[in-house]
Amino acid sequence: MSTYKAPLADIRFALFDVLQAETLFSRLGRSEATRDVIDAVLEEGARFNETVLAPLNRIGDEIGCSYDKATGAVTTPPGFREAYAQYVEGGWAGLTAPERFGGQGLPHALGTALKEMIDAANLAWGNFPLLSHGATEALLQHGEPWQQEVFLKPLVDGRWTGTMCLTEPHCGTDLGLLRTRAAPAEDGSYAVSGTKIFITAGEHDLTDNIVHLVLARLPDAPTGSRGISMFIVPKLRVDRDGNVGGANGVRCGAIEHKMGIHGSSTCVLNLDDAQGWLIGQPHKGLAAMFTMMNTARLAVGLQGLGLSDRAYQNALRYARERLQMRSLSGPKFPDRPADPIIVHPDVRRMLLTCKALIEGGRLLGYHASSLLDVIEHGGDDDERAQADALLGFLTPIVKACLTEWGVECTYHALQCFGGHGYIAEHGMEQLARDARITTLYEGTTGIQALDLVGRKIMQLQGAGLKAFLELIEGFCSEHEGNPDLAEFVAPLRDKAGEWQRMTQEIGGRAMADPEEIGAASVDYLFYSGYVALAYWWARSVAAAQTSSQPDAFKDAKLQTARFYYARILPRTLAHKAAIDSGAAPLMALQADRFDA
Amino acid sequence: MSTYKAPLADIRFALFDVLQAETLFSRLGRSEATRDVIDAVLEEGARFNETVLAPLNRIGDEIGCSYDKATGAVTTPPGFREAYAQYVEGGWAGLTAPERFGGQGLPHALGTALKEMIDAANLAWGNFPLLSHGATEALLQHGEPWQQEVFLKPLVDGRWTGTMCLTEPHCGTDLGLLRTRAAPAEDGSYAVSGTKIFITAGEHDLTDNIVHLVLARLPDAPTGSRGISMFIVPKLRVDRDGNVGGANGVRCGAIEHKMGIHGSSTCVLNLDDAQGWLIGQPHKGLAAMFTMMNTARLAVGLQGLGLSDRAYQNALRYARERLQMRSLSGPKFPDRPADPIIVHPDVRRMLLTCKALIEGGRLLGYHASSLLDVIEHGGDDDERAQADALLGFLTPIVKACLTEWGVECTYHALQCFGGHGYIAEHGMEQLARDARITTLYEGTTGIQALDLVGRKIMQLQGAGLKAFLELIEGFCSEHEGNPDLAEFVAPLRDKAGEWQRMTQEIGGRAMADPEEIGAASVDYLFYSGYVALAYWWARSVAAAQTSSQPDAFKDAKLQTARFYYARILPRTLAHKAAIDSGAAPLMALQADRFDA
Repeated sequence: MSTYKAPLADIRFALFDVLQAETLFSRLGRSEATRDVIDAVLEEGARFNETVLAPLNRIGDEIGCSYDKATGAVTTPPGFREAYAQYVEGGWAGLTAPERFGGQGLPHALGTALKEMIDAANLAWGNFPLLSHGATEALLQHGEPWQQEVFLKPLVDGRWTGTMCLTEPHCGTDLGLLRTRAAPAEDGSYAVSGTKIFITAGEHDLTDNIVHLVLARLPDAPTGSRGISMFIVPKLRVDRDGNVGGANGVRCGAIEHKMGIHGSSTCVLNLDDAQGWLIGQPHKGLAAMFTMMNTARLAVGLQGLGLSDRAYQNALRYARERLQMRSLSGPKFPDRPADPIIVHPDVRRMLLTCKALIEGGRLLGYHASSLLDVIEHGGDDDERAQADALLGFLTPIVKACLTEWGVECTYHALQCFGGHGYIAEHGMEQLARDARITTLYEGTTGIQALDLVGRKIMQLQGAGLKAFLELIEGFCSEHEGNPDLAEFVAPLRDKAGEWQRMTQEIGGRAMADPEEIGAASVDYLFYSGYVALAYWWARSVAAAQTSSQPDAFKDAKLQTARFYYARILPRTLAHKAAIDSGAAPLMALQADRFDA
Repeated sequence: MSTYKAPLADIRFALFDVLQAETLFSRLGRSEATRDVIDAVLEEGARFNETVLAPLNRIGDEIGCSYDKATGAVTTPPGFREAYAQYVEGGWAGLTAPERFGGQGLPHALGTALKEMIDAANLAWGNFPLLSHGATEALLQHGEPWQQEVFLKPLVDGRWTGTMCLTEPHCGTDLGLLRTRAAPAEDGSYAVSGTKIFITAGEHDLTDNIVHLVLARLPDAPTGSRGISMFIVPKLRVDRDGNVGGANGVRCGAIEHKMGIHGSSTCVLNLDDAQGWLIGQPHKGLAAMFTMMNTARLAVGLQGLGLSDRAYQNALRYARERLQMRSLSGPKFPDRPADPIIVHPDVRRMLLTCKALIEGGRLLGYHASSLLDVIEHGGDDDERAQADALLGFLTPIVKACLTEWGVECTYHALQCFGGHGYIAEHGMEQLARDARITTLYEGTTGIQALDLVGRKIMQLQGAGLKAFLELIEGFCSEHEGNPDLAEFVAPLRDKAGEWQRMTQEIGGRAMADPEEIGAASVDYLFYSGYVALAYWWARSVAAAQTSSQPDAFKDAKLQTARFYYARILPRTLAHKAAIDSGAAPLMALQADRFDA
């Protein structure tokens, strides 16, 4: 069985040494988030995840959720309900929610560290609170006061959970095609009818009520995506005063049989004149949806990170224990029948690839979440606007890269086990199966890449990229003459310059042919992710140097950074060549000739 | 559910237009393998695989093999037994085996085409006959006449199946550690005792008897891999006259619960004074094992190809049917609610990646198998020796690249389905799970890479590489002035030169530090695979030009070759940079600091 130990040393390094969270939180007026408080939350979070959630991961996979056709009820795996009660009891549900709604008002950067632990400990279980966070954000930003009072507070304290009801059988990405309808009722509510699919946490037994946020069309709605509104549709009917009534017209019609995340219920929801409350303006549902979606996209990125870390921890343990063959440069442990496989260069290549992508990815993800704190509490409009542009730019990179790297790291980690990795009892194959959903839901990698290039670069003229390039240039200037960092600063600056030029070239080509956007998109996204990680690795070395970390830790950062620059960053060469080749090689073959 | 249609047009193109099988077989004196015969076998093979094996693929996954603890018996999924009977009835078992042992004596290149179809139709089922082929080769090359009479003939006609019993709990790659013992008995047989794990097809209900080829140590055996002998251990005892007796001391102790290939039994075999017959010389079991292993490695490579093709076919169908979003360059199907997703550049990128790796990979695999025909029937010793060196060089590339590309193609194909790809009913996630074993069994990718660089390049001084480079240079010289091929010939020649130089550099570095071999190995293997495919794509364009294929087919080859050169071949840049960085970035971090 795979085990999990929260990587507190590296989480602390990321928060305190690199991102300088203490200074940041204090500048943002979050004086309650002292180092002591943060440390205590991290310790307690580690304990909860290691001892309560992690041991339930395998049974969640083996038994999964079950569906009762007669009642439409979903039963979660053994222990999930009790773990959720402990989660609520511990105050984890509202950790980062505003205090006025019952939350603890702690920084998002800290919430993200906790989220990483949950995803590593038990991804399937983590999807239940995850969806609540998206609903919380939507209600915070778009809900009327009575809606916040009635629906938001129970989400914050964890008594209820939330969902996002977007997808229908014929439309996932293309929400303009959606057909669910909402007809006005006399009491100011709406009768919502239609079929939604792939609804994560759409039905379960962890809480009595569930707050569905449902996209639907009003009778007078324009066609396409400009005619979509969002509705609050609770599982149990709730009036404006918060009185909970009987069952609403929402029924789970089935749960999906999936490759992984068996402990997560993925539901077909049939809405039949269900009572719904309009949230936000009519026909402006996509704005509220994007609020939820952006929260969820960052959260899914973290899932890739958490799974990678758990997979890496187990592969590392195995590589130290498993004795097989001698080192090519002579026995390293002559007293044993063979050397542990960690002596072999290719096993090290796989482990170091995981380590470099995980620790670099942690900074990518935590930095993005710290921008949420700046956006909410930043000193002036300029700072908030800049953070917003940067976060918008980074969100598709965090979502897509951390999840693709999650697939890659769980692949390498399983591979370190050889044939044993394919056997269920070691738990590695579950991590690989669970990881596979993350590049699909909340927008596939291809959709993230279109958001990055089409929207964040082309439509918004690259304000976020500009902000990130300024971070890189600031760092490079600061360490211009530092001989210990020269091996990183020079190539980082080169890559940043290339990134900027390449972006302009794509923009130029896209003026002539919009297909160039899609043709460049995924390679551009990966290119961006690898340059971003080069920045975080250089900063990690710099931060480690001046930190009070042990020498072994400083050395590990330096050697892993060198590995990253030597072995991973060159992937940008292939991505750049693909981008430079333009749209023609992708578009030339007629659709009917793909199997000519 | 995923469907499968044998890609006969491209199989014929590979065999007849590119590899010029008719000329080859006639030159090798295989006059019975006429085009008519080959066509008839392909047609009939397609029918069998499409209508008998492919429909059993999903039930094989869902129900899997089951194990009866009381009897040690394994029951295969519904329909597997009947399908196997049809396979034997149709004469497929002995398709490429010598006629003197009851086979049909047809060329290996043709057998490989059939094998690809089986792997695509039903990988798990295909593992039962696959293991027989390895046992057949071992008995052909190392068996005494009475062993061939008694054990080989029933394998060739399919009445019995075979296994390879190598792995033990504490040793997979490192067979020098194995502990299974064989004690001489009075009748010339041996009593074999020990525990073997991961024995594919180790127990099942398809045939009455199973021929286990077991590695074990004789009492006087030297330690390590030089003290290993091979034994024939049948499930039912068999004497030298072929009389079948009662149960032998081999019992299946359990079957593994695996990520995929649920229809394949992966067995723990407990041997307790089992009757075994020595095959080959005492202590020389590894030679016989490598005979089996090389056959199995080529066969597993083909598994990656077959799975990729089935996944691609289904993704292509879905991409043509699924309507979602409009093309960025304006609606392509304005009469429909949205465009089919095959209009989007990134969907095309995923599909074309599959197409390029599959069709190029098919030539890589079929060419390697045609070398088996040359080795068996080549005109002179030089030709046979050259083919043998080339095949030895290509075997790890075929095994590792086709399986890694199988993982990649099943990933892309699933990704084309979006969230639907994660749901069991579409069958895409099964293909991804099944593919995951192929980079592990019969030697992981890392082991293939060590075989390639450590043995085939360093120890054997690159004779196989030299032969392959000569093929490339011959092709480039032949098409020197051909303007239609200039876009391929020039970069191919460049890459071939770089390949050669890089090989020499690795050799030079390895003289100083043997860790350089392992450090370069996997990147070198991929680099080799991509250059090999560049050769096969250039040859495909050349062969298509002069063929009688339809224009649409010729165009598809040209456009896919262009895609390959523009978008896939540049991956060599990243692999080269990784190789050039040498061993230091992999070896510098102390083993106890990976989690410092």
